[in-house]
Amino acid sequence: MAVRLITLYAPPEDPAAFDAHYRDIHAPIVRRYPGLRDLRLTRTDGVGGRPPAFYLIAEMAFDSRADLDAALASEAGVESGRDLRNFAGAGVTLTVADDESGL
Amino acid sequence: MAVRLITLYAPPEDPAAFDAHYRDIHAPIVRRYPGLRDLRLTRTDGVGGRPPAFYLIAEMAFDSRADLDAALASEAGVESGRDLRNFAGAGVTLTVADDESGL
Repeated sequence: MAVRLITLYAPPEDPAAFDAHYRDIHAPIVRRYPGLRDLRLTRTDGVGGRPPAFYLIAEMAFDSRADLDAALASEAGVESGRDLRNFAGAGVTLTVADDESGL
Repeated sequence: MAVRLITLYAPPEDPAAFDAHYRDIHAPIVRRYPGLRDLRLTRTDGVGGRPPAFYLIAEMAFDSRADLDAALASEAGVESGRDLRNFAGAGVTLTVADDESGL
């Protein structure tokens, strides 16, 4: 788990529809990524009484940045990117975490 | 590691000053949180040629949401919140990830 692709989804207008789409359509596409070592899905909560900035965090682990880039360039990677418009209209932020780095 | 407080720092104007402040002043305050099980610091990279949305991700693990809330309400928690204005002017997003949840 050297590198993680972290996807942070903004709170959707229709959480039930978001959940159903993510579970039944998007997650199966992600699970076809070549080289995917782990898919971790996490619900979020707010802090100090403020509403949460994100609704769902998806963390996809790969052995290396090269494997991550190859997954995103694969047929499943392209399909998952295209599928975002079907359920993530509220917004999505992607970032890559290099777990070998540290401060 | 049932619950994580995730702090996402926007790219700072002066990365070297940010790093020095985080390492020498902020991290030592965070490490005084009562009940803190782990502090994981991760550098981020962009995806698809875009610049990264965040500069640094700090993940603080606790046994429970109650422990997390107690840490934020503690003297170290209040001090760390106050210290944000000294180095995180570019922006910071806090969210709580309940690792027991899943989709």
